[in-house]
Amino acid sequence: MSPARRPAAEPNDQAGATISQLAELAGVSVATISKVVNGHPDVAPETRATVEGVIRAHGYRRKRRATRSQLVEVVLHAITGDYATEILNGAAQVAAAHGLAVVVSELHGRHTPDRDWIEGVLARRPAGVVAVFSGPTPSQQERLHSRGIPIVLVDPTDEPDRGVWSVGTSNWSGGLSATRHLLELGHRRIATITGPFRTLSGRARLDGYRAALDNAGVKVDPALIREGDFQIADGREHTRDLLRLPDPPTAIVACNDGTALGVYQAAHEAGLRIPTDLSVVGFDDIPSSREMIPPLTTVRQPLRDMAAAATEAVLALSRDEPPRQSRLVLATDLVVRASTAPPAR
Amino acid sequence: MSPARRPAAEPNDQAGATISQLAELAGVSVATISKVVNGHPDVAPETRATVEGVIRAHGYRRKRRATRSQLVEVVLHAITGDYATEILNGAAQVAAAHGLAVVVSELHGRHTPDRDWIEGVLARRPAGVVAVFSGPTPSQQERLHSRGIPIVLVDPTDEPDRGVWSVGTSNWSGGLSATRHLLELGHRRIATITGPFRTLSGRARLDGYRAALDNAGVKVDPALIREGDFQIADGREHTRDLLRLPDPPTAIVACNDGTALGVYQAAHEAGLRIPTDLSVVGFDDIPSSREMIPPLTTVRQPLRDMAAAATEAVLALSRDEPPRQSRLVLATDLVVRASTAPPAR
Repeated sequence: MSPARRPAAEPNDQAGATISQLAELAGVSVATISKVVNGHPDVAPETRATVEGVIRAHGYRRKRRATRSQLVEVVLHAITGDYATEILNGAAQVAAAHGLAVVVSELHGRHTPDRDWIEGVLARRPAGVVAVFSGPTPSQQERLHSRGIPIVLVDPTDEPDRGVWSVGTSNWSGGLSATRHLLELGHRRIATITGPFRTLSGRARLDGYRAALDNAGVKVDPALIREGDFQIADGREHTRDLLRLPDPPTAIVACNDGTALGVYQAAHEAGLRIPTDLSVVGFDDIPSSREMIPPLTTVRQPLRDMAAAATEAVLALSRDEPPRQSRLVLATDLVVRASTAPPAR
Repeated sequence: MSPARRPAAEPNDQAGATISQLAELAGVSVATISKVVNGHPDVAPETRATVEGVIRAHGYRRKRRATRSQLVEVVLHAITGDYATEILNGAAQVAAAHGLAVVVSELHGRHTPDRDWIEGVLARRPAGVVAVFSGPTPSQQERLHSRGIPIVLVDPTDEPDRGVWSVGTSNWSGGLSATRHLLELGHRRIATITGPFRTLSGRARLDGYRAALDNAGVKVDPALIREGDFQIADGREHTRDLLRLPDPPTAIVACNDGTALGVYQAAHEAGLRIPTDLSVVGFDDIPSSREMIPPLTTVRQPLRDMAAAATEAVLALSRDEPPRQSRLVLATDLVVRASTAPPAR
């Protein structure tokens, strides 16, 4: 088991080399070790690599109490929309209850933090890192781990490695219940605009959609499955396309509420009324979904609770009190509003 | 001039008492002074008050370089909606360019930070504080000032005191141009749903609205002026009311884009089409305004640029390089989309 995969529950405070031992092992000064450990920028790349190698091999026994700051890091792939504000609210609430402040950083739409980010985190020495819809690379995780900085993933983009803590939601069940709701209303031509197939949540929701159709004995029509990217524009463009089919859908399961808004836009352009002419189900239940015209039927993903649970978990890990479950899956709920109705035809 | 009003441009590093001098003056230990100065919680309230009094009277000569952290504080009245994400993006971008991280805190809808917040900030020793649509009390400002922590207000809720840096927008001109646009289209029954009259921005936009009507020789009808609170629900309820008037408005100037969405909802309920039956102008141009159905005509307030300018200013102040202007006012622009048209009647 490589250090990167080692569960954060095994604190490395009890083991590993001290700064002066590391200095001797690496053949550099104590000051250099300290700079690398604390993320200072002015260390030559080769020296940094040597020191990181020695830390990897021997571990690093940090003086935990002396170096822990009163910060929790939250890293988002993008600070955009209600998804981001819900997450920040959940994290801020738990952090405040523990007397900690939240440092927020974003990855400009990427899903992996860059070098500046990790150096910054090492310099700030937070109590822990909450990574949302994004994840540090194995090498970045290793560097955090070697400093005793725990990390918890929220809404992970891929299956987390063993020993990596995560908080997710029951995406498959969500996709299933959205599709079942439409089947129960009498729909048979049900399309879906998914998240990217490479993301865990996108794939799981699609599989839930398929399962509901299979279970109801409705044939899955590949023409009704469209891969999107969680963006409003995807919802709009795929819906334009779907409505041009010889046998267009009477209902659409969107992969998130933003995509559902894009469906509304395309329906409006085509002169279709929601839900009379087209039913729509979203996913997330962000605050603005209930303000849509008409209010959106959607699968509630408890984003605020997920961020709160992840922040609690990372703080527990920082106290060497690992939560019993390394993988927390919160339930989704179907919230029925006014965007779904029986099909007109 | 009280210390709270002293411009942050006068650095107090060159003057003031050292920690040991303060300890002697207050009759307490150096450790106690250090705790108060750095916001540690375990100091008796009376002792804290005594020490703060001595600091007020004599100033505090901090070792600036030794104590400055790599953080910028952003405090928002609420982490809600696109307003918050636009601000955070602007601040994060400038902070990242300077190698700093952003600590975000929110006031749960209040406009004045509480005691825990100020103690936390003093403990974190940020390079500076950016306070958005909110403002520390004079006593909180004084405590920041005595530690050499500069503050810049964004979208201030009230007229900033002399010597307090701020970044705002031309709210009056925005209200004027929104109303003029409707007048030019031929509207005469133009209502407005304002922000709270006690907020600077709410009042300035209303005055711009009045000025446009006066200037066009259109009588201001008090029945068409409704005080809101920047919320979607206000927009909805005031519009319901306005549409019940014997002579209802043909156009509405909303105080922000959220309020404009509430206008859309009420129009939809009443079976009115936008813009054919009712024209609507928003304020802010948050990203979601262009996704509304139909896309919203709105007054663009450059929120991201405002936060970026404020962060630049606070970092300049922290380097003792005060910007030439203590009060920066960025321009607003009318963005004409599809929610405004000539009146049908």
